Amino acid sequence: MPRVYNFAAGPGTLPLPVLEEVAANFVDYHGEGMSLIEMSHRGAIFTDIIEETRLLVRELLDVPETHDILFLQGGGHLQFAMVPLNLLGAAAEASYIVNGTWSRKAAQEAAKFCHVNAINVNASLGVPDASDIIVANDAAYLYYCQNETVNGLEFNFIPAAPDCVPLVADISSNFMSRTVDWSRHSLVFAGAQKNFGPAGLTIVIVRKDLLGLTTESCPTMLDYSVHAKAGSMYNTPPTFAIWVANLVCKWIQAEGGVAQMDQRARVRADLIYNQIDNSGGFYINSIPKKARSRMNVVFTLEESALTDLFAAEAAKAGLKNLKGHRSVGGLRASLYNAMPEQGARALAEFMQSFMKRHG
Amino acid sequence: MPRVYNFAAGPGTLPLPVLEEVAANFVDYHGEGMSLIEMSHRGAIFTDIIEETRLLVRELLDVPETHDILFLQGGGHLQFAMVPLNLLGAAAEASYIVNGTWSRKAAQEAAKFCHVNAINVNASLGVPDASDIIVANDAAYLYYCQNETVNGLEFNFIPAAPDCVPLVADISSNFMSRTVDWSRHSLVFAGAQKNFGPAGLTIVIVRKDLLGLTTESCPTMLDYSVHAKAGSMYNTPPTFAIWVANLVCKWIQAEGGVAQMDQRARVRADLIYNQIDNSGGFYINSIPKKARSRMNVVFTLEESALTDLFAAEAAKAGLKNLKGHRSVGGLRASLYNAMPEQGARALAEFMQSFMKRHG
Repeated sequence: MPRVYNFAAGPGTLPLPVLEEVAANFVDYHGEGMSLIEMSHRGAIFTDIIEETRLLVRELLDVPETHDILFLQGGGHLQFAMVPLNLLGAAAEASYIVNGTWSRKAAQEAAKFCHVNAINVNASLGVPDASDIIVANDAAYLYYCQNETVNGLEFNFIPAAPDCVPLVADISSNFMSRTVDWSRHSLVFAGAQKNFGPAGLTIVIVRKDLLGLTTESCPTMLDYSVHAKAGSMYNTPPTFAIWVANLVCKWIQAEGGVAQMDQRARVRADLIYNQIDNSGGFYINSIPKKARSRMNVVFTLEESALTDLFAAEAAKAGLKNLKGHRSVGGLRASLYNAMPEQGARALAEFMQSFMKRHG
Repeated sequence: MPRVYNFAAGPGTLPLPVLEEVAANFVDYHGEGMSLIEMSHRGAIFTDIIEETRLLVRELLDVPETHDILFLQGGGHLQFAMVPLNLLGAAAEASYIVNGTWSRKAAQEAAKFCHVNAINVNASLGVPDASDIIVANDAAYLYYCQNETVNGLEFNFIPAAPDCVPLVADISSNFMSRTVDWSRHSLVFAGAQKNFGPAGLTIVIVRKDLLGLTTESCPTMLDYSVHAKAGSMYNTPPTFAIWVANLVCKWIQAEGGVAQMDQRARVRADLIYNQIDNSGGFYINSIPKKARSRMNVVFTLEESALTDLFAAEAAKAGLKNLKGHRSVGGLRASLYNAMPEQGARALAEFMQSFMKRHG
């Protein structure tokens, strides 16, 4: 089949040139007589790949030397535990902005380890007003999810915490799609399977001076400082996923970098939001504009009975995986870095024609 | 380069037909218009793959319905913590047979969570005598590493524990190379990157009635029962690695199953051990024969100064990655399922010619 436009929320679409390079070099990695997935992670070839990938991330996101870049496993779900286990120290409380599915899960997991001060925001309101974010000086950290994939919400500002309180962000679904202000963020993490590569790789970028606060009973593998000291080679890393992430970084670099990714993301998202806003209520997205995600555009149909038909007809037209998360229903177009503008344009055109036929 | 014989200890050699099938279907997965690594893990295609893989493992290893099969992340290192966190229950002690690098690491990690009764065996003696394995009735479990990759040791018997004490085995490096007696083993685990697929996938096979013993403070992702209930889809699994493992299972099945893998392993290992034993001391392996690994043949040279030359000349001859683990030095030939007999034969012949030239 010709390549489709894949709007899945993650694992999601990746750059075609990256996929082609992997396929071409998969059986015999650049003339080495074996596949990269058969190579020792301690050999020169993979060691070069992981070091180069770290450097590429540092360059692309302008990560200062105050922060370490770790390649881990376990996805966002494991980070929900690792963040409190590593950052609580002697503190008894951490603050969580809870405005969607993923921040809620993170807060629930943290409650195993400390008192959680939840700053709750109804998802229909999007993100909190800056003035509603009240964090105690003795909180271990303030946590937020910068982009809520399920609910289609994205922060367009950085929540303010007291200077003494580290700020932690889950940036799984908008990683590499906008810059990060490192003077404000002490720790960010991202599962790779949206904008960075295959599932099974998690990237953590953390201030070095925050490492080493875990207690004796913390599992070794859940201690950031162990991985930092070992250059993410404490155990066998997911070598294939890191190879793909390396190629994704090079693709972003060749395409113009993270600022270019941000600009493209806005163009794509605007195409779909404009279609929704100009549909006279046929398509609905009631999230306040300032909180709308550039990555995941969620919408419903005024006539909700048409939802399945929309997804099915779109799929036939080569626009795949548009159904919303199973917990909320409706429709969702995930527009990650690798989605060509033409894909968003094709979806916008399909939305218009579907409305004409069924409106 | 033509395909080499890759004796790396893991990640290690995989079946060529598997690699070729992955490459051929990598960019466009069987006509779906996208790569498997871009597909939602909750879509029909990946759901079928993970379910089929579970079934294939069940068939190939004859896993009874009393045991659950889990696909996790984090490798053996994370299992070193998960085993005690999940199996300790109210017990204060667990017993560990410590006869090599990996069992020692496992015991050290367990000591974070309970008192460890270590049954120490000097690596030069290989495995303990059955009579030396003394386990208290109230131990939470007895743990052993069935094949020590670094030290080249393998159990050729199943350690006996009291009936009331579950037996746990790390079978990372001999997974799918011999049968498992499920009437004796309550839990086995394996990192994929030896006999099963790419790094980043861990398989755990555990008795269902042992699930659910974790305490409230156990990170959710470290609780086997969470993954068991969710069919290993509690979070996004490493989809690519599971696809490759699926193809490896089918390859093993087509080649004649696990019994055939065992037989081939013995043939390969015998080729190298015979070369060592008939070298008049030029090559040395002093492990008692009953404890010699079929998977990882370690040896040294009487004239140890020749070690680097051996590895370098072998590499030139297409016999790659023969250096021993960095912690022990010497040489090591890892002979996993995917190593053709011809590869072991080529190594044996090289050993003979090297000895002629330097003996």
